[in-house]
Amino acid sequence: MKKYSKNQLERFPIYLKYLRELRDQGVRHTSSPLMAEKLGYSQELIRKDLQVVCRDSGTPKVGRGVMQMIDDIETFLGYRKLIPAIVIGVGHLGGALLNYKGFLDMGMHLEAAFDNDPRIVGTEIGGKKVFGMSMLGTYIREKGIKIAVFTVPAEKAQLLAEQVVEYGVTAIWNWTPISLKVKPGIVVENVNLASSLAKLCHKMADSDRRSFTR
Amino acid sequence: MKKYSKNQLERFPIYLKYLRELRDQGVRHTSSPLMAEKLGYSQELIRKDLQVVCRDSGTPKVGRGVMQMIDDIETFLGYRKLIPAIVIGVGHLGGALLNYKGFLDMGMHLEAAFDNDPRIVGTEIGGKKVFGMSMLGTYIREKGIKIAVFTVPAEKAQLLAEQVVEYGVTAIWNWTPISLKVKPGIVVENVNLASSLAKLCHKMADSDRRSFTR
Repeated sequence: MKKYSKNQLERFPIYLKYLRELRDQGVRHTSSPLMAEKLGYSQELIRKDLQVVCRDSGTPKVGRGVMQMIDDIETFLGYRKLIPAIVIGVGHLGGALLNYKGFLDMGMHLEAAFDNDPRIVGTEIGGKKVFGMSMLGTYIREKGIKIAVFTVPAEKAQLLAEQVVEYGVTAIWNWTPISLKVKPGIVVENVNLASSLAKLCHKMADSDRRSFTR
Repeated sequence: MKKYSKNQLERFPIYLKYLRELRDQGVRHTSSPLMAEKLGYSQELIRKDLQVVCRDSGTPKVGRGVMQMIDDIETFLGYRKLIPAIVIGVGHLGGALLNYKGFLDMGMHLEAAFDNDPRIVGTEIGGKKVFGMSMLGTYIREKGIKIAVFTVPAEKAQLLAEQVVEYGVTAIWNWTPISLKVKPGIVVENVNLASSLAKLCHKMADSDRRSFTR
């Protein structure tokens, strides 16, 4: 397999989403220049990215087959096999993720949720059953859960990380603000909405200041 | 104001969330070493970060006042004044964001939502009214909306960006996979869940390969 960068990896799901939209509209071929125009990247960037994942190089004047590109990117990203996942912590954010239907298209299958609140244990949210925390170990082991999505309060996250790893989880999608310490071989990917919004608001303030001093 | 980096800016909301939790537990003082232990960063990093935002330098053996630090960070991040925002595109993701209650603590007030689907126009989601797209310009102008949260289909995003900017929006929180082209002075911050998940899954695959070759 060709080498690729983290930035390239981040763009492949973007290409995939766009190509699936083309497929659904009945479009059969596309090209780097057309994709560049629609997605806002440069042609050169897209051409190099596609060389990493695509098996053929396309036909001059026709471009690449949309179905083939979808297949190539899905294979590259490992979307062929859905990875079983659970959500731990069913507050507003956890509930929102359980209600979001897009994860199946991203290779992750949310199978269940866990929380300690007796008012929601036993209910279903977004079609997924909510279990009590006492069931966590049994469920992860029996179902072979690989990804735990963390939407728990910050102070619970580190201890919980150690527990789920012991039960067999190998990856944590961490929506808490905590920087988790895990043993080698365990993967953590952080999402922080507050940090993203803080960057947005600060860029706005900067932009305002520049306007005033003009 | 002291200089700060993008990485520092991303950490201030994390400190703020933690400090608010301390406050709610009745804790009145804390220190860089204590925060370092809880949050998983180094003491030196936290000490330097706090020097950017905090007005006093704390008392030896006592640390810094929690309330004062909250106040300093909220002021720094501009959370004193809630920025009015709307969500455009009420699919699963847009609906999830409308149901999430955490944005008020991050300085953003979601006031309404916009969509073209007649089945949801006129309803309320997460307590926010859903308007038809024909109301977009009037609403943004009359309410002085500054942030537009984009959860529309990819192919609609670029044209929509040009429209909302014309109506007076100065910042787009972009949850679509499109790289938006906007004029100078307009701020775009991208969130891409598919890219984050792709990084997670790929790191997992890498980690598996390393385990097998041991």
